[in-house]
Amino acid sequence: MGSTQARIAIDAMGGDYAPAEIVAGALRAQAELGVEVLLVGEPQQIQAQMEHHSPSLQLEIVPAEGLIEMHEEPLSALRRKPKASINVAMDLVKQGRADAVVSAGHSGAAMAAALLRLGRLRGIDRPAIGTVLPTIMANKSVLILDVGANVDCRPKFLEQFAVMGSVYSKFVLGISDPQVGLLNIGEESSKGNELALRTYELLDQNPRLSFIGNAEGRDVLTGRFDVVVCDGFVGNVLLKFAEAIGEVLLQILREELPQGWRGRLGSLLLKPNLRRIKQRIDHAEHGGGLLLGVDGVCIISHGSSQAPSIFNAIRLAKEAVDNQVLDRIRSQYQQTEATATDGE
Amino acid sequence: MGSTQARIAIDAMGGDYAPAEIVAGALRAQAELGVEVLLVGEPQQIQAQMEHHSPSLQLEIVPAEGLIEMHEEPLSALRRKPKASINVAMDLVKQGRADAVVSAGHSGAAMAAALLRLGRLRGIDRPAIGTVLPTIMANKSVLILDVGANVDCRPKFLEQFAVMGSVYSKFVLGISDPQVGLLNIGEESSKGNELALRTYELLDQNPRLSFIGNAEGRDVLTGRFDVVVCDGFVGNVLLKFAEAIGEVLLQILREELPQGWRGRLGSLLLKPNLRRIKQRIDHAEHGGGLLLGVDGVCIISHGSSQAPSIFNAIRLAKEAVDNQVLDRIRSQYQQTEATATDGE
Repeated sequence: MGSTQARIAIDAMGGDYAPAEIVAGALRAQAELGVEVLLVGEPQQIQAQMEHHSPSLQLEIVPAEGLIEMHEEPLSALRRKPKASINVAMDLVKQGRADAVVSAGHSGAAMAAALLRLGRLRGIDRPAIGTVLPTIMANKSVLILDVGANVDCRPKFLEQFAVMGSVYSKFVLGISDPQVGLLNIGEESSKGNELALRTYELLDQNPRLSFIGNAEGRDVLTGRFDVVVCDGFVGNVLLKFAEAIGEVLLQILREELPQGWRGRLGSLLLKPNLRRIKQRIDHAEHGGGLLLGVDGVCIISHGSSQAPSIFNAIRLAKEAVDNQVLDRIRSQYQQTEATATDGE
Repeated sequence: MGSTQARIAIDAMGGDYAPAEIVAGALRAQAELGVEVLLVGEPQQIQAQMEHHSPSLQLEIVPAEGLIEMHEEPLSALRRKPKASINVAMDLVKQGRADAVVSAGHSGAAMAAALLRLGRLRGIDRPAIGTVLPTIMANKSVLILDVGANVDCRPKFLEQFAVMGSVYSKFVLGISDPQVGLLNIGEESSKGNELALRTYELLDQNPRLSFIGNAEGRDVLTGRFDVVVCDGFVGNVLLKFAEAIGEVLLQILREELPQGWRGRLGSLLLKPNLRRIKQRIDHAEHGGGLLLGVDGVCIISHGSSQAPSIFNAIRLAKEAVDNQVLDRIRSQYQQTEATATDGE
């Protein structure tokens, strides 16, 4: 294993299907993605899961004791359990023994652990969680942030989200000039709540952003925007709604398509096409959210993640590491300090 | 025409397809719904449209001069044009010559005209726009409010939205004990932004509400909630996203279903079923939003409304009038004043 391979620490104990599905996804990722995965958690439980897989597949286990439960208040739980798996995973990045953390456990705890153990990047007031959604244009996605880290935001936080999102879009998603939108309730600059009105000005004046204006709810998935910024309350509501509506649509298809004999025959013929539709709608494909703005690469996956989602989350982490997302964000703010004295 | 028939004033000049589609929808509504429709606008233009229809169908025209254009700032435009169609329509309600207003024109102007000409109901600080969306449960819908009237809200506004929404759900939608949810980013009462945290308490303590807790984005369309309250910023983003995502799905179906010969044959067989799916997803079926909290029944339709949407909007107005929504909301606040001295 060369030193250029990304090393990903994964919280083996976090998530509804931990550790079985976490271990399964991690094994596949190491075999297929050219990454080195460190499994952080209770050694015996992890070992027991590994025995269900080929002995030729072996991952390094980093021992940890306990985990942060879903009902626990993050900050006090993290302090009470310094050896919990998420704490140990973050420490691996802090110590330079890993390049990234992936967790499907308590997302608030993962964020808090990242902030406490890794700290923020210089120039960033609040880290944000970014998520990539597919758009109506084939092969074009949109990065939405924040989708849940900050429920009450100030305009400059959203401006920072836009800068971080643009960097990610450019260097990881390969968009040469990411088009940035502000989630809002109208196209005109005069529309919106106080936060949106003041954020519009900041985005419009920032020379390092390609800000193209407000994105209404209906515009988010058109493919016109590469990055859409919003506060974490609206973003979280929107993301969870988007994920659920995929299910609603599949449900309507399941109910309506097989009606009548033509329906039953037609549905039979369309089986492979329906499978492709499910794939395009299904959120398991996306892997998880990226916590941008902390001094380390952190992927926050769904609590309901199974092996395929974990595999995709590890790939997301690898891409962020390989494309030096942190250094790119850092350099944006070093430039600022060198060239300007910012207000706000 | 008996005096018990609801009289609906419609802004014949407002909307992308005015006056042609407005007149067509209005004629059909009067013929089929047992309502009396008053067409408010430029007599010559309206008369010219009526000539395309059967001479046996004739509606009363109430003359008005000009309309509020989409780019105009509502308040100043309404003052500058006292005889604009939306102003005249509101005055008909004020004077008791009509029971309700329907408009597909500038929605901000319709709201402002309603506030200026009709005023607020006693006990209501801010009117809200409510919209009904279908849920995953057959024949069950959910009323979401506010979807755009108030971008910055205080907790007591959301509490009033919940009361008005419950009244509407009970007396117009026929839900005996409407289950109320607060749009939020987690199930626990400790989750959310400042607005949500403080609103949770108010809803939880209000004896006239059946508040069952937070509704996350994923819960909105499950059918568990009859009424979901939120500020107008989040609600508007969510509504426009929901409307657009129907289009996204139909687009994916159009692209993926006809792939391959099995796909083409299957799609052909499924034509009637796909039409039903389009119907379930299509927002034109819903007619528009109800402006709750002003002293008159006002339906605010999409700018893109064509005759079927206008017809549905008039039906919505008729149902609100027939079920005495205004009196029911009024009586909620009279009870309060009689039985309690409210804080906040």
